[in-house]
Amino acid sequence: MPETLRILGIDPGLNITGYGVLDWGNGAPKVCEAGVVRGKSKGSLAKRLLEIHQGVAEVIESLKPGVMAIEELYSHYERPRTAILMGHARGVIVLAATLAGIPVLHYSATQIKKILTGNGRAPKAQVQRAIQRELALKEIPDPPDVADALAIALCHGYLKDKSSLLKG
Amino acid sequence: MPETLRILGIDPGLNITGYGVLDWGNGAPKVCEAGVVRGKSKGSLAKRLLEIHQGVAEVIESLKPGVMAIEELYSHYERPRTAILMGHARGVIVLAATLAGIPVLHYSATQIKKILTGNGRAPKAQVQRAIQRELALKEIPDPPDVADALAIALCHGYLKDKSSLLKG
Repeated sequence: MPETLRILGIDPGLNITGYGVLDWGNGAPKVCEAGVVRGKSKGSLAKRLLEIHQGVAEVIESLKPGVMAIEELYSHYERPRTAILMGHARGVIVLAATLAGIPVLHYSATQIKKILTGNGRAPKAQVQRAIQRELALKEIPDPPDVADALAIALCHGYLKDKSSLLKG
Repeated sequence: MPETLRILGIDPGLNITGYGVLDWGNGAPKVCEAGVVRGKSKGSLAKRLLEIHQGVAEVIESLKPGVMAIEELYSHYERPRTAILMGHARGVIVLAATLAGIPVLHYSATQIKKILTGNGRAPKAQVQRAIQRELALKEIPDPPDVADALAIALCHGYLKDKSSLLKG
């Protein structure tokens, strides 16, 4: 019988980074905690990166997840500058996981949507309804960054089981 | 009489990050140390980011610079994916400086070339000769990442003096 795996899902951002922690055992996955880490220091990239890094490190320290699942950056951004800045945020988040000794898995937005709805191009509302249903939530998590983080954690949970089945 | 400022110049990269530390006082700037930090773990972005972060943190810890000057990422990359990955490296490097309490200044490639040669579009060889001349080096630093890092440190040194003059 497999043990419960605690999965930390991360939707990275320089302003708001969503996180969602799921306990994934034999039964339905359960939300352990979910919320956001904010980069507050407007105008200072360096301070913001520190806030994001320390915020995520605190979540890891207090909730002790076994794995981090994070959304891959979409490389076809219309604004390359935004994508590069987002890369900075993602870097310090991945570093927080590695410093804590937990593995980091990367999933693309298409992969996440496909796993949750069967359609890699599903509209946002459909993905949100899937999260609500799978986790038996009364409401769709708000802000959307939290829903996105839970979606990534769910995606890892499903793929992890699938790959165990395939391997087993 | 101003004190000597120790400037850490960084040319960020996921494979090779060049660093150059200059002592900038009343006389000509002097090279304190220069070298590279390598991201060795091929295939693992997480481990590579850790190696880069720790490598730069060690340089800061041992040489105690007063400021970090780093090359700004060029946002018109032909390969957006490369630029995003480079953003990750830059994020963990900037974080190393902020965790050590030193300020981070960003300079564009054009700015650096213009300060060193008078021409923002100067060819690489011309920039390298300028570094060699300004720092009275017997040879052009190798690999080129080291020369680039020294160029960034020099750029900060010149602009720092200029802004002091303007303010005074």
